[in-house]
Amino acid sequence: MTDNRTVEIVSIGDELLLGQTIDTNSAFLGRVLGAAGFQVRSRRTVGDDWEGIKNAVDEALSRADIVICTGGLGPTSDDLTRGAVAELFGAPIDIDETLLAALQERYRQRGLPMPRLNITQAEVPRGAKVLPNRYGSAPGLVLERNGRLAILLPGVPNELEHITRDEVLPMLLGRVVSAGATQAPPVYLRLLRTTGLGESAIAERVEHVLPMLPPLTLAFLPSRAGTDLRLTSWGVLSQEQAEQKLDAATALLREAVGDHLYAIGDRDLAEVVGEELRKRGLHIALAESCTGGLLAKRFTDFPGSSDFFLGGVVAYDDAVKRAVLGVGEETLTRHGAVSEEVALEMAEGARIHMNADVGIGITGIAGPGGGTPDKPVGTVCLAVVLGDRAEVRRTLQIGDRDDIRERSAQGALFILLRMLQSE
Amino acid sequence: MTDNRTVEIVSIGDELLLGQTIDTNSAFLGRVLGAAGFQVRSRRTVGDDWEGIKNAVDEALSRADIVICTGGLGPTSDDLTRGAVAELFGAPIDIDETLLAALQERYRQRGLPMPRLNITQAEVPRGAKVLPNRYGSAPGLVLERNGRLAILLPGVPNELEHITRDEVLPMLLGRVVSAGATQAPPVYLRLLRTTGLGESAIAERVEHVLPMLPPLTLAFLPSRAGTDLRLTSWGVLSQEQAEQKLDAATALLREAVGDHLYAIGDRDLAEVVGEELRKRGLHIALAESCTGGLLAKRFTDFPGSSDFFLGGVVAYDDAVKRAVLGVGEETLTRHGAVSEEVALEMAEGARIHMNADVGIGITGIAGPGGGTPDKPVGTVCLAVVLGDRAEVRRTLQIGDRDDIRERSAQGALFILLRMLQSE
Repeated sequence: MTDNRTVEIVSIGDELLLGQTIDTNSAFLGRVLGAAGFQVRSRRTVGDDWEGIKNAVDEALSRADIVICTGGLGPTSDDLTRGAVAELFGAPIDIDETLLAALQERYRQRGLPMPRLNITQAEVPRGAKVLPNRYGSAPGLVLERNGRLAILLPGVPNELEHITRDEVLPMLLGRVVSAGATQAPPVYLRLLRTTGLGESAIAERVEHVLPMLPPLTLAFLPSRAGTDLRLTSWGVLSQEQAEQKLDAATALLREAVGDHLYAIGDRDLAEVVGEELRKRGLHIALAESCTGGLLAKRFTDFPGSSDFFLGGVVAYDDAVKRAVLGVGEETLTRHGAVSEEVALEMAEGARIHMNADVGIGITGIAGPGGGTPDKPVGTVCLAVVLGDRAEVRRTLQIGDRDDIRERSAQGALFILLRMLQSE
Repeated sequence: MTDNRTVEIVSIGDELLLGQTIDTNSAFLGRVLGAAGFQVRSRRTVGDDWEGIKNAVDEALSRADIVICTGGLGPTSDDLTRGAVAELFGAPIDIDETLLAALQERYRQRGLPMPRLNITQAEVPRGAKVLPNRYGSAPGLVLERNGRLAILLPGVPNELEHITRDEVLPMLLGRVVSAGATQAPPVYLRLLRTTGLGESAIAERVEHVLPMLPPLTLAFLPSRAGTDLRLTSWGVLSQEQAEQKLDAATALLREAVGDHLYAIGDRDLAEVVGEELRKRGLHIALAESCTGGLLAKRFTDFPGSSDFFLGGVVAYDDAVKRAVLGVGEETLTRHGAVSEEVALEMAEGARIHMNADVGIGITGIAGPGGGTPDKPVGTVCLAVVLGDRAEVRRTLQIGDRDDIRERSAQGALFILLRMLQSE
């Protein structure tokens, strides 16, 4: 408990308890702290409530070396974290003149008057260390009690992320070193991403491998994208030992799962496919109907996609399928917009009109309306053309509108990946 | 504390603490429980750890009437919730023959053998009530201690959502009624969404309204989409009283914020714009470069978008801008792909080629690479054409790649909304 590396997170905000905001900050903190050798043991979420915040921080400080609070540092009346934690520490609040001048300067540069409320952003509990915030007006604050830290960070995700990377991590690591403590080995993780098989089916395939994994643990993480496997070394192995074990376990799992395993690490299937295209000097164009641009978005979510991604047509309306992609009037009439034939002509049309090597066509019924007995909601036709090869598949995706769209995009990517790998 | 309506949530999974999965389930539960008159007071997240789960559930049961646990009910070895909570309640585990038969039947229908591991999904702590899961194999389970409930739900979001709506809420509401208790009024919320102004600027505009709001509270929720305002009646007013107060407060805030307020309720700006288009019988087509299909995706995220959304072209490559959208070679050479001129030709091209009434063009530099001194990362040109009107704007969006893309799409939508409303 006193090795300076146990962390608890207290996230603050009625919007979190009410469910109007999803707490992505805690996940971010878990990732970066775990990777740096700190262990998040527990998380707590409380509302915008003075006593609730004080109690949660007090309890967390009784268990963990480091307590990170997120949210409630803004300029408005529902922002209570600074005051409540200052009270817990018995620290009066002062105006920090340097912070105030910097705030005024920011507004001057943009040619705007500083909103008066913003003066609260220069308030600092006496004795607290200030962590500069380059992307917003609320700085981070650090208070210490009996060698344990309470770190207050703003709740706006990109501000929190930058302060954590630029200020919090260097400070925490420096503290471990200056205390002369030997930092225990970090938690080492490896994520193996699979698609196209359910959780139980994956679990059966890998069952015979399980006895060979300890001290690593294996977790199964099902989602729309597939079932991910996470191998974890919980701060017991050195980096070298952990990497050896992780490599060996990865090899065993890869053999057990086969080509359903598409990535090592937190990479989207679109990114993996993009890399395969880039390696081969191939360019892709898309024709999407029910996925409505989702697949194009996934291809462009990461930088560098212009190396292989030319563009896409979201052909929601049948007239657009005809006019922009050249899908045949007769094909549409005879087989219907949701058909393998139309998917194929869409893929071909995208490829030809955008002068690409690879074309993908997706057409289906994402629901909730529009299903028929013959083509129920979830019917989606996927086509991929690559050189003189084509694959067309009619699928029945389960779940709600979002599920159907996500799973269709994932299905098309997996078809293409297999085609590329079997060339 | 014994009015059967205080809730704590315990979410379980190393993947949550490690930040590899974002906890959307807790947000969902907060929303639906709050709307039904229950109050989520606190949330806790613990790892896949037998004692940790037991302690967290035990502590939560000491404070709240209802404890909802999510996750850890799957068929694999890292799923510990069922066993740990059964031990806490001193309940042995039995195989439920009805559940087992139903599981076997599911697999038979799909023509697959049941994975042996799946038998754990028929395990039930003695005395627990079973909540059927129509979308997956792990049922929900309910255990009772001294009139307080522990409800175990699977962690897969759509399964959790369906069981909550179909089973948990009816059960909880029925319990309140049968105990003869008068259910306290629900929490009533109203969300007012604004865009185009920062949090402090919004706060200043509404400051003079604040004294008129109690007993409602007002929260400020900044995000990429803008600053949302949330009015809350915390279970103290009847429905009629709450609605009167909420209506009055909404009118005051709307007057203070002006046309930056684009929606009442949890609606995306794309949905609001879509409705304005539908009302006017107008059809829209998009031409996206740096946003890469993101805006098309937002228009098609909700059902019924085919009423007004014809399609879009993701013109990532300049050749696609020319070939599919008809952007002039000279315009591209003279002004560059990121220019107001190209944005305008993209919007016009989308409108003409897809035979639409409205066209949007977006071209910019989402980064992290590609910036120049003249056009730094974040430079995005937005164009909207509607009838014989056109608006073109060169903007400088702040933040990372995702921020820049999201804010650009939001900016284009806001331009169009204002054009539609000022016709």
